[in-house]
Amino acid sequence: MYRIGQGIDFHKLVEGREFWLGGVLIPHTKGALGHSDADVLLHAICDAMLGALSLGDIGQHFPDTDAAYKGIDSKILLQKTYELVNSKGYKLVNIDSTVLLQAPKIRKYVDSMRTTIAGILGLEVDDVSIKATTTEQLSFIGREEGIVATANVLLQKGM
Amino acid sequence: MYRIGQGIDFHKLVEGREFWLGGVLIPHTKGALGHSDADVLLHAICDAMLGALSLGDIGQHFPDTDAAYKGIDSKILLQKTYELVNSKGYKLVNIDSTVLLQAPKIRKYVDSMRTTIAGILGLEVDDVSIKATTTEQLSFIGREEGIVATANVLLQKGM
Amino acid sequence: MYRIGQGIDFHKLVEGREFWLGGVLIPHTKGALGHSDADVLLHAICDAMLGALSLGDIGQHFPDTDAAYKGIDSKILLQKTYELVNSKGYKLVNIDSTVLLQAPKIRKYVDSMRTTIAGILGLEVDDVSIKATTTEQLSFIGREEGIVATANVLLQKGM
Ligand SMILES: [Zn+2]
Ligand SMILES: [Zn+2]
Ligand SMILES: [Zn+2]
Repeated sequence: MYRIGQGIDFHKLVEGREFWLGGVLIPHTKGALGHSDADVLLHAICDAMLGALSLGDIGQHFPDTDAAYKGIDSKILLQKTYELVNSKGYKLVNIDSTVLLQAPKIRKYVDSMRTTIAGILGLEVDDVSIKATTTEQLSFIGREEGIVATANVLLQKGM
Repeated sequence: MYRIGQGIDFHKLVEGREFWLGGVLIPHTKGALGHSDADVLLHAICDAMLGALSLGDIGQHFPDTDAAYKGIDSKILLQKTYELVNSKGYKLVNIDSTVLLQAPKIRKYVDSMRTTIAGILGLEVDDVSIKATTTEQLSFIGREEGIVATANVLLQKGM
Repeated sequence: MYRIGQGIDFHKLVEGREFWLGGVLIPHTKGALGHSDADVLLHAICDAMLGALSLGDIGQHFPDTDAAYKGIDSKILLQKTYELVNSKGYKLVNIDSTVLLQAPKIRKYVDSMRTTIAGILGLEVDDVSIKATTTEQLSFIGREEGIVATANVLLQKGM
């Protein structure tokens, strides 16, 4: 039995923050603002997994009002989320995701992100897809005020 | 045989309108503007089901130029849409959705929405996922000028 | 074995460009700006197929810095992308997509787009869904400064 999930996450980009994306630290003049490390891509993937099994959303499992999650590495959230998915008898078939940002170019970091995520989830690298696109200077993304990530996942029971 | 669908819907938020979301009336200072009750989440779910079977979109089935749909309860549109899906031999496996809005907090209404939607569709509550996120004050959503919902569905034939 | 993919693409709308959408030329006062014919819908579908198999994104396969792709008909990119998918042993089950634009109304062109896309991909027309929505005048889309398309695909191996 299959199930699908979707996730979308938004963060402001501000100066004076590290820029974590897909579990990787990327050199940039800005970083995403948030209670945790604000890794917009890992958050979207977590939400997609939770949504596929109707387990709520990341804000419920790891509330930004909880000091335990202040500055936390989102790779830990990703691992905990997938443990929950596994405990329900499901495994990931594949993840497809897109990062919407105007700058910097992230292509050279994508394979490192995929390897990192696949390692945490015990997947093949080829089961983790990360795409990136600018918004052609349009919107808050184009003005480099924020970053958005979307993810879709396919889960299968008892694989 | 499986098929996937996606839906996305946008509405302005204005004063002087009831705020219907996921089939539930939510107390708020604004509501969504539209010809029907403007329930952005139910509309996204309808579009995802129609899209999965290439049956057009909600605007074609329930035109906003038709007086019959003025102020209509979108739960009726959801039911009619699923009847159409069933008539093609398909059933829903699961729905995952996300509401993008800055305010109000809707978490305490989510289980009521899920129960309402599952009841109309004859699903288990655990087959209906509703997540919510702000846009961190970014965009028209962050300025509380509008609300967006996205949905993905997985359908299966002859379940 | 199934896999899912997602794609999203953004283009500015400007005067003095032809408006290609879904492989069809649509009469309009503006067209999408881009290196190729800037067909936002075909690009989103290509990205969704590439993403389902973790084959990167359209910008990697058909770089906008490559003169070979200047002004290219995106139907060729769609065909090349699907040949790559087929070479991996996968076929499309169905495509669902949504075009976000304020104007013009595209409904009367949708069946022509679906026929065009299905023809290139060797699919039934009913396996290609194209929906359209305005953003209710909100955002750069509502101001007719840009156009966005999203697509989801379901692939199956060895069908
Ligand atoms: Zn986040
Ligand atoms: Zn609507
Ligand atoms: Zn494009």
